[in-house]
Amino acid sequence: MTRKTPIGILGATGMVGQRYIQLLEDHPLFEVAWLAASDRSSGKPYGEAAKWRLDTALPERIAKMTVSPAEPESAPRVIFASVDAAIAREMEPKFAAAGCAVISNSSAFRMAPNVPLVIPEVNAGHLHMIEEQPWRKESGGYIVTNSNCTVMGPVLALKPIVDRFGVEQIFATSMQAVSGAGYPGVASMDILDNVVPYISNEEEKMEEELLKLLGRLEGHAVKPLDARMSASCNRVPVVDGHTVSVSIKLTRPATRDQIIAAWGEFRPLAGQDLPSAPDQPVQWEPQPDRPQPRLDRNRGKGMAATVGRLRPCGVLDWKFTVLSHNTIRGAAGATILNAEMLASIGKLEPVTAAAHA
Amino acid sequence: MTRKTPIGILGATGMVGQRYIQLLEDHPLFEVAWLAASDRSSGKPYGEAAKWRLDTALPERIAKMTVSPAEPESAPRVIFASVDAAIAREMEPKFAAAGCAVISNSSAFRMAPNVPLVIPEVNAGHLHMIEEQPWRKESGGYIVTNSNCTVMGPVLALKPIVDRFGVEQIFATSMQAVSGAGYPGVASMDILDNVVPYISNEEEKMEEELLKLLGRLEGHAVKPLDARMSASCNRVPVVDGHTVSVSIKLTRPATRDQIIAAWGEFRPLAGQDLPSAPDQPVQWEPQPDRPQPRLDRNRGKGMAATVGRLRPCGVLDWKFTVLSHNTIRGAAGATILNAEMLASIGKLEPVTAAAHA
Amino acid sequence: MTRKTPIGILGATGMVGQRYIQLLEDHPLFEVAWLAASDRSSGKPYGEAAKWRLDTALPERIAKMTVSPAEPESAPRVIFASVDAAIAREMEPKFAAAGCAVISNSSAFRMAPNVPLVIPEVNAGHLHMIEEQPWRKESGGYIVTNSNCTVMGPVLALKPIVDRFGVEQIFATSMQAVSGAGYPGVASMDILDNVVPYISNEEEKMEEELLKLLGRLEGHAVKPLDARMSASCNRVPVVDGHTVSVSIKLTRPATRDQIIAAWGEFRPLAGQDLPSAPDQPVQWEPQPDRPQPRLDRNRGKGMAATVGRLRPCGVLDWKFTVLSHNTIRGAAGATILNAEMLASIGKLEPVTAAAHA
Amino acid sequence: MTRKTPIGILGATGMVGQRYIQLLEDHPLFEVAWLAASDRSSGKPYGEAAKWRLDTALPERIAKMTVSPAEPESAPRVIFASVDAAIAREMEPKFAAAGCAVISNSSAFRMAPNVPLVIPEVNAGHLHMIEEQPWRKESGGYIVTNSNCTVMGPVLALKPIVDRFGVEQIFATSMQAVSGAGYPGVASMDILDNVVPYISNEEEKMEEELLKLLGRLEGHAVKPLDARMSASCNRVPVVDGHTVSVSIKLTRPATRDQIIAAWGEFRPLAGQDLPSAPDQPVQWEPQPDRPQPRLDRNRGKGMAATVGRLRPCGVLDWKFTVLSHNTIRGAAGATILNAEMLASIGKLEPVTAAAHA
Repeated sequence: MTRKTPIGILGATGMVGQRYIQLLEDHPLFEVAWLAASDRSSGKPYGEAAKWRLDTALPERIAKMTVSPAEPESAPRVIFASVDAAIAREMEPKFAAAGCAVISNSSAFRMAPNVPLVIPEVNAGHLHMIEEQPWRKESGGYIVTNSNCTVMGPVLALKPIVDRFGVEQIFATSMQAVSGAGYPGVASMDILDNVVPYISNEEEKMEEELLKLLGRLEGHAVKPLDARMSASCNRVPVVDGHTVSVSIKLTRPATRDQIIAAWGEFRPLAGQDLPSAPDQPVQWEPQPDRPQPRLDRNRGKGMAATVGRLRPCGVLDWKFTVLSHNTIRGAAGATILNAEMLASIGKLEPVTAAAHA
Repeated sequence: MTRKTPIGILGATGMVGQRYIQLLEDHPLFEVAWLAASDRSSGKPYGEAAKWRLDTALPERIAKMTVSPAEPESAPRVIFASVDAAIAREMEPKFAAAGCAVISNSSAFRMAPNVPLVIPEVNAGHLHMIEEQPWRKESGGYIVTNSNCTVMGPVLALKPIVDRFGVEQIFATSMQAVSGAGYPGVASMDILDNVVPYISNEEEKMEEELLKLLGRLEGHAVKPLDARMSASCNRVPVVDGHTVSVSIKLTRPATRDQIIAAWGEFRPLAGQDLPSAPDQPVQWEPQPDRPQPRLDRNRGKGMAATVGRLRPCGVLDWKFTVLSHNTIRGAAGATILNAEMLASIGKLEPVTAAAHA
Repeated sequence: MTRKTPIGILGATGMVGQRYIQLLEDHPLFEVAWLAASDRSSGKPYGEAAKWRLDTALPERIAKMTVSPAEPESAPRVIFASVDAAIAREMEPKFAAAGCAVISNSSAFRMAPNVPLVIPEVNAGHLHMIEEQPWRKESGGYIVTNSNCTVMGPVLALKPIVDRFGVEQIFATSMQAVSGAGYPGVASMDILDNVVPYISNEEEKMEEELLKLLGRLEGHAVKPLDARMSASCNRVPVVDGHTVSVSIKLTRPATRDQIIAAWGEFRPLAGQDLPSAPDQPVQWEPQPDRPQPRLDRNRGKGMAATVGRLRPCGVLDWKFTVLSHNTIRGAAGATILNAEMLASIGKLEPVTAAAHA
Repeated sequence: MTRKTPIGILGATGMVGQRYIQLLEDHPLFEVAWLAASDRSSGKPYGEAAKWRLDTALPERIAKMTVSPAEPESAPRVIFASVDAAIAREMEPKFAAAGCAVISNSSAFRMAPNVPLVIPEVNAGHLHMIEEQPWRKESGGYIVTNSNCTVMGPVLALKPIVDRFGVEQIFATSMQAVSGAGYPGVASMDILDNVVPYISNEEEKMEEELLKLLGRLEGHAVKPLDARMSASCNRVPVVDGHTVSVSIKLTRPATRDQIIAAWGEFRPLAGQDLPSAPDQPVQWEPQPDRPQPRLDRNRGKGMAATVGRLRPCGVLDWKFTVLSHNTIRGAAGATILNAEMLASIGKLEPVTAAAHA
């Protein structure tokens, strides 16, 4: 019998929680073992507590699992978390203190100095920051975060360009899917035949997270990318898939072919055998009217970003469009890939005898 | 009995042609007198030739009018034109040569050196360029154009800022309604649950038209605004109303209040009594999540642009969102307002006895 | 100075409450004088308490009005009410007992034996039932209701057919707009690229209200129409306008032309001078692909129902499609038209010296 | 090496043509070997000729295949066809006469007396009608058709009820996805924020095909089901998945549980090992607000119909909602399943030495 790592899910009934369950069905390394949600759900069978919104069937085993209270006592060591920032701020440290590896999609600790904000293809090295976390030293527990769903695509697309040519200025205008707001999230009266040019705190998150993700670990701290960044975030009537229009100013000149080559050759995880890592994390699409969310969001099982429309920019140097699946690559899949990376570097194992006995 | 100026419509069955008809119903100065469309429609009653797509009833008088061949012989002197660029390129000069005032929404001649590209609130003075047109000299006829539908909102919003503070760099990312593509236009398979990050030639038009519109007449030629401009155009699932995210670098610093004041005080047509001119062409909306197409596109009877979300930009100086109705302010209403302005400066009257006998 | 009847609105911040305000702006008989909503809103200026979702501007006078507690003490005599059934059940009798004419869009009392459920074109005579209400006798107050938004179109379309030919069986399948569910109402995740074939209690309401509306007043009670009725209700991604596919079995045979004539000649309120009554309440549209919500919902200022596609039915006799604006004709406009009818028969005046001094 | 049957596709660039290609990628029995489309496409690589609209990648092998002229000379023996009725009427007999097994999604011959209209779970026995076709006798070729996309779900849902209880009257009101109209198909201006209550010829097709599909083979002819049927067809803003509201009158009474059991036990192809046949062709969904197109269309890889909302009908006996994927189960998958069934009964092999040498 294979032995998969048991996973607990904090925020299991939410949109991203549902995606964890969907993506972990048949996962080779991980297995859902514990589900926690709000007090209202606790004690109920998951199938009753959650309003399943995905287009694959809720696995029967999961439907029957009882939702646990959100307390570390009964939880397995590895926790995938996706809860509101205010709740995460209180709860995630409690689990980390109890010895859990909290691998989180929540925004609460992304910008905390000793918390890694990681995309494995981009800055896996930042994961070592967990060793500086007080919880790690005491109980073996820690917190690792993945990014906001909107910044994911741009960061994947920018990483190979930053590495080869340097990037000094970045403009990003998003057209975001409604699933990014959870459920019930965006009211249909607000989005049918409409665009909402505002998403609370989203621009701030995009700007600061992007610079941290593309930053360099110096000693125990991340030095953010030294670039100017401006994000404008909009909601559009799309179910899944965030489209972002990006313009950049480079440090060193690059031709169109060189940028496309940088994307094509960007395979930083090749050979590492992480089950959720797409072969080609950034996929160049030469057709002039792509990427499009409905057609491209599921590439690489929802884990690849698609880039297209690379052309000169009249203000900066180059502009392009990038698309990624916001609840897979931009949320649940990001957590899972972080966990796979942590597993591969041996950080999912308990470190002290005391931990989480 | 009042005597209204008879108007001919070239491209009468199209989306913008329908808006001309809708907006001229009960117009105090103009009256639809002649309708022309493709050969296929010619000779039929308009009500049969056109698939009426607007939510007000097709006026019965118009429904019964016979569609004329697109030849100047039978046409009145004043022509509103909205046809494909290739057709306009051939047809509009023919009408101008025959002595017609061709007031056009087509793109064919917008960038021609002696053709005015005009938004009355922005550059009404450019209208005098018609006197340099060869047709004008020979037959009294001329061509005047209005802008692309997408550039309209940004230009209205930028004009008072250019005048007070100077603008050196402009970034514009559009989220455009499907009505901008005419009928049948965008296939539903392409836009339901989707964004299309490409509209053929749209970015080029936006960039060059914006600079011409904000340019200065020097002698008989327009000197474009001396600014760098970058446009990214996207189609979204919205019926009417183009939303544009704009960032700008100013020549002279301005505070947020100063920019808002510039918009509020921008009433260049006040007192000129043009029936289609909105009292307040640029309307500042302080709510953080506005403007939105469904809620704001009909302001000023579809002739006002709404601005919101003014905030500092991390790359340039300021950013904001502007929205305007693409088939009213951005197309049919723009032609009509140009005609009203031409009427007010006496340019709708025949100039020579020879003209259009 | 004209003296308009002051109107109080219960549920003023909701979707229908907003429509009351919109439709009463410039109303010749009525004037908004009092706004009440939930405790949370009470004491705030309306402009702050309500998230205005309509595409016309919130009138400034209304924006500044303070939201009152939902108590009859401070209320004017005439109340337009649109609140949840549970709240209505408690609150509307309180206002009626205090002497108010409660003209309600709420569902709570529509089927109560002595409460008129009225569409003026259909069963204005039922209004006399108010005289049997205990509140009426004690304080002069009473409750009058209008129908569910979905049943409105079918009842208007059926009334002239019932009168001329008799109707014995009715099939109605609805495709309903999201505005019918209020705000926030339907989650965008539930309706983008989707149909929801269920609306809680809607089929029951449609079936029983239709029969009461088309019923006959016998003595002091309504004898429902003696017909079999089956409703199937669906939500579709449309902002405003309920489309209903209807099939009927007649008592006496009718030709297609006879049915169309029955609709065309149906003008029961002609000459009564009710400001919100459309000249032609049921408008036949001969084009084969109509009515459509986006194109037809605003006919008669949103107060007319449009019928089309009359054709033989393979199971019953005839089938057709009917469309009406759900928040105007189907809700706010219905209340206002009921009030206009009550005014015209002298029922908006206080009856006793004691009433509501 | 495995030997798969080579398949030719007539109408390869269309919406259903694309689905054939998508569904045949990795098919165990069939392999795309020949692609034909209009003259305009002929001679081009498929990747250039087709505007690929599906959300999986166009297989590279297919992208490089040259589109052939639509002539039987170069075609393989087995042809999947999905072309306009007018073209099919001319072309399909030509291929059949040349010895091809034409397995068609086109509507041209569905109602022809000696052409089987087949859903394998419903009326596989009708396939034997091909032996009466003149082409069959001469060249071995024949035509087999699958049904209209909208009737598919209702027929699957009705079959077990017809068998157990008899059905005498059927009401069906559809809410159809835009993909059913092909590409470009429905204009976005016609369907955003809208319902179109008309699809040309669709009601006629639904009514007659349903009765033929549920009919009995008597001798060499199909005796249609003896029932009254009424269809009302509507287009809604959904990408894929037709939702149909159905009411029925039974011959023999049935309880709700009996009907649900009839669906659950309906597995007519169990044990036949047809690769595209879903284990459970009709899936009962007990949640009150299901089926929904976005959530249920992909069940059984798009080959299962989902039923829900079974409840008494006020006019007939029972009503329910059925949903199926219109371009998979309702079109491309239907053709493929018919081909699998034909293969299993030995009808894909050439019958005469002369045939198609």
